[in-house]
Amino acid sequence: MSLDRIRLASLHDKVISAEQAAELIQDGMTVGMSGFTRAGEAKAVPLALVKRAKTNPLKISLVTGASLGNDLDKQLTEAGVLARRMPFQVDNTLRKAINNGQVMFIDQHLSETVEQMRGDQIKRPEIAVIEAVAITETGSIIPTTSVGNSASFVEYADKVIVEINTSVSTDFEGVHDIYIPSARPNREPIPLTYSEQRIGTTGIDVDPAKIAAIVFNDTPDSPSTVTDPDEETQAIANHLIEFFEKEVAAGRLPNNLGPLQAGIGSIANAVLTGFKHSSFENLVMYSEVLQDCTFELIDAGKMTFASGCSMTLSEKCGNRVFGNLAHYKDKFVLRPQEISNIPEIVRRLGIIGINTALEFDIYGNVNSTHVCGTHMMNGIGGSGDFARNANIAIFVTKSIAKGGAISSVVPMASHVDHANHDVDILVTEQGLADLRGLAPRERARAIIDNCAHPAYKDALNDYFNRACEQGGQTPHVLEEALSWHVNFKKTGQMLIQEEANA
Amino acid sequence: MSLDRIRLASLHDKVISAEQAAELIQDGMTVGMSGFTRAGEAKAVPLALVKRAKTNPLKISLVTGASLGNDLDKQLTEAGVLARRMPFQVDNTLRKAINNGQVMFIDQHLSETVEQMRGDQIKRPEIAVIEAVAITETGSIIPTTSVGNSASFVEYADKVIVEINTSVSTDFEGVHDIYIPSARPNREPIPLTYSEQRIGTTGIDVDPAKIAAIVFNDTPDSPSTVTDPDEETQAIANHLIEFFEKEVAAGRLPNNLGPLQAGIGSIANAVLTGFKHSSFENLVMYSEVLQDCTFELIDAGKMTFASGCSMTLSEKCGNRVFGNLAHYKDKFVLRPQEISNIPEIVRRLGIIGINTALEFDIYGNVNSTHVCGTHMMNGIGGSGDFARNANIAIFVTKSIAKGGAISSVVPMASHVDHANHDVDILVTEQGLADLRGLAPRERARAIIDNCAHPAYKDALNDYFNRACEQGGQTPHVLEEALSWHVNFKKTGQMLIQEEANA
Repeated sequence: MSLDRIRLASLHDKVISAEQAAELIQDGMTVGMSGFTRAGEAKAVPLALVKRAKTNPLKISLVTGASLGNDLDKQLTEAGVLARRMPFQVDNTLRKAINNGQVMFIDQHLSETVEQMRGDQIKRPEIAVIEAVAITETGSIIPTTSVGNSASFVEYADKVIVEINTSVSTDFEGVHDIYIPSARPNREPIPLTYSEQRIGTTGIDVDPAKIAAIVFNDTPDSPSTVTDPDEETQAIANHLIEFFEKEVAAGRLPNNLGPLQAGIGSIANAVLTGFKHSSFENLVMYSEVLQDCTFELIDAGKMTFASGCSMTLSEKCGNRVFGNLAHYKDKFVLRPQEISNIPEIVRRLGIIGINTALEFDIYGNVNSTHVCGTHMMNGIGGSGDFARNANIAIFVTKSIAKGGAISSVVPMASHVDHANHDVDILVTEQGLADLRGLAPRERARAIIDNCAHPAYKDALNDYFNRACEQGGQTPHVLEEALSWHVNFKKTGQMLIQEEANA
Repeated sequence: MSLDRIRLASLHDKVISAEQAAELIQDGMTVGMSGFTRAGEAKAVPLALVKRAKTNPLKISLVTGASLGNDLDKQLTEAGVLARRMPFQVDNTLRKAINNGQVMFIDQHLSETVEQMRGDQIKRPEIAVIEAVAITETGSIIPTTSVGNSASFVEYADKVIVEINTSVSTDFEGVHDIYIPSARPNREPIPLTYSEQRIGTTGIDVDPAKIAAIVFNDTPDSPSTVTDPDEETQAIANHLIEFFEKEVAAGRLPNNLGPLQAGIGSIANAVLTGFKHSSFENLVMYSEVLQDCTFELIDAGKMTFASGCSMTLSEKCGNRVFGNLAHYKDKFVLRPQEISNIPEIVRRLGIIGINTALEFDIYGNVNSTHVCGTHMMNGIGGSGDFARNANIAIFVTKSIAKGGAISSVVPMASHVDHANHDVDILVTEQGLADLRGLAPRERARAIIDNCAHPAYKDALNDYFNRACEQGGQTPHVLEEALSWHVNFKKTGQMLIQEEANA
């Protein structure tokens, strides 16, 4: 316990145990917690809640920034605490509970959760649980490795529990830029016009009377599990870098491409890592999550600045960055996810958005969320916030999955998160389809020729040709449109052998 | 010919015939024309182009604001002039040519066409053909009844043909507010913070040297064909007004609801007309198209101001408004469609967006464009621009079509323009489903119970129940998900008799 991290002395007597703090959370409450892509989540109170639920069951609606680390979503699910969960998750156990209908999961654009609370479109949290490195002399809460929705949760909650994580350096003070749009009508333009700009405060200002409890924890964030590039992700990266080089040569993009956004994951990581050996200079990020590759590009002198709403690093990269924060502090900023993702800024800055697809169809409709159209993977996350308004909206995926049993390029997407209007470029290890300015039939040609795996090309061409005979702006053989997914569910393969050999 | 409408005398010698002007358009060119929802389109040059194509065939890419009036899309299609067409249309003949693959149609969010040109993502027009009421002393072009994409077309084209329509009152000068966002990076916030605000110029400024030809026409816009409310559209309007009353009573909306947007068409018209006898006061529009109902609300003292990018009126309403423009001039403004529709402003102002769906599924995914998933109706128009960022995104439709052969509520949308994340409220004549904060299984319950036609409820419930047995965040029986559409194509009915009676 380091009371010197609570610089407003009148708050010292708010320090209680996590178990005591967890008692503030009642059955049926909506609870807003910090945490985004397993960074900066409150760690002690959720665990205490899990423990308490074993003897004193309760159900809550849990709203966060995005996913929680340290297996908290798993443990909360197993303890039966979650009645409702929004707006994103990545946990296996929770995913199962969502897909069997036990937990009601509300999948949302990550810029919209607090906007909907602001307008009372969805329930505001009664209580907020926020991880911090410190509380300042004025009671301002200094977040840790993510901002997420924390600032708005603090504003809307009746009571705030602050979890001070003593394992996180107090040097984090000054890293954040907290700006909350005002209520509508009478909202002013968000004044941000470049990634490096600061428009807010370094902490979350709050009436100290609202701070109901302060708890200490010393548990680090879960380290990132992003894997190194493999042959396919490297090929995707190469296709993209070649594309960017052509765009710069044609004068359509500046030599730093414009602010970059990349979804979390191995493919995006490979693409960004690929920039290290590219000809692009003075790269800038305006993204959601800052990953290892962000800091590798900064270290390599390729990237001058990165704006995000959370940082999710491997243990090795974390040691380097968190252990040397003074060196990095003027090179990145963490903002509320509403500001990192908001369409107003995404469009104004002309962001290059790179996100991962689960599958896409021959017309370029993208499924980011639902396996076989029904089972939730993680959630749409920020992909919609970025893709709709990006200067160039790019989706990447490997062309096949499960050893070839699944084609990521399908006749009809089994679920649509991003309609064709919002999808400019598709990339697999096979190649890149530039869909800009193309009509659907032209998109199909570009996608099948460039992105589909050779094992599926004939079948896709066959489908497309027969569909065109039936006519339409977006031709389909409706009886067969979802047959690949039906096949997969029945046989474990999208194409049954006869078709594959035909 | 009224040369006094060309106040920059040095341009007088640019006046030529429409036939001569049409000669400036060459085979293979991209041509940007004024015109939005059959308002303010250039009328003489396209007709001359049709005539010319009969002896001297040519193909062009035609980009407009939205749909053209005076059967121009029909005649251009029949003359074989259209190789490519974007971003919207409503013509029967063109629709057929699109659906049989003769014309490549690029369906776009209407705020994005010129943004994509600005970034050289799609081809800029070589030539622009713009209808105007006058050219000022400085060469500024004063549009007529729509602004659409005209200002950007003028900026990007090498040559500009101005068509002065002498049937439109010169009192239109001062109605428009022309603002074009600057190129990225370094774009400033769009300074608009309320519907009435003017942020630009009253005309389209252009280097007079770019004006290659001036043509005269005296053909009025095609009058609006919007029909009066019927029993079903009246019921939809009543459900919505009841909903708004509850929102106001609960303090979630101000008594003027916030700026209103309504798609074009009979249902939206009925809803807005319904406001006349409602308790709401000081209504304001921030919309795309100003229709009869807009001016009826203004006349009734219910609406104080309307912002749009075009005005499409019936003959009767047109006579009243155009014949008395001085009276209305301070009560409305016409802006570029990029500004009327841009996400930045839609979200800042907190717009109530009301748009028409072709069909939606039990989870609230909306199809706005494709009949049976394949055949283009009109295009997505501005519905995506508004729905994604609206304070409340509302979609309306009658619950059945074709005498009951079609249910507008289906197991799975055959094409998705608006994913569930973007859809807050669904309304049919049967009732209203409030989907805010609901998970998909809860959405299904609300939609089937409130929106489906009684004749289809049992079948939808049966589908949903069997889907839930298979599990998933968004349960489906994939083999049957599109079977209603397949049935309809085969038998003319979505439910074959045995199913309907079961």
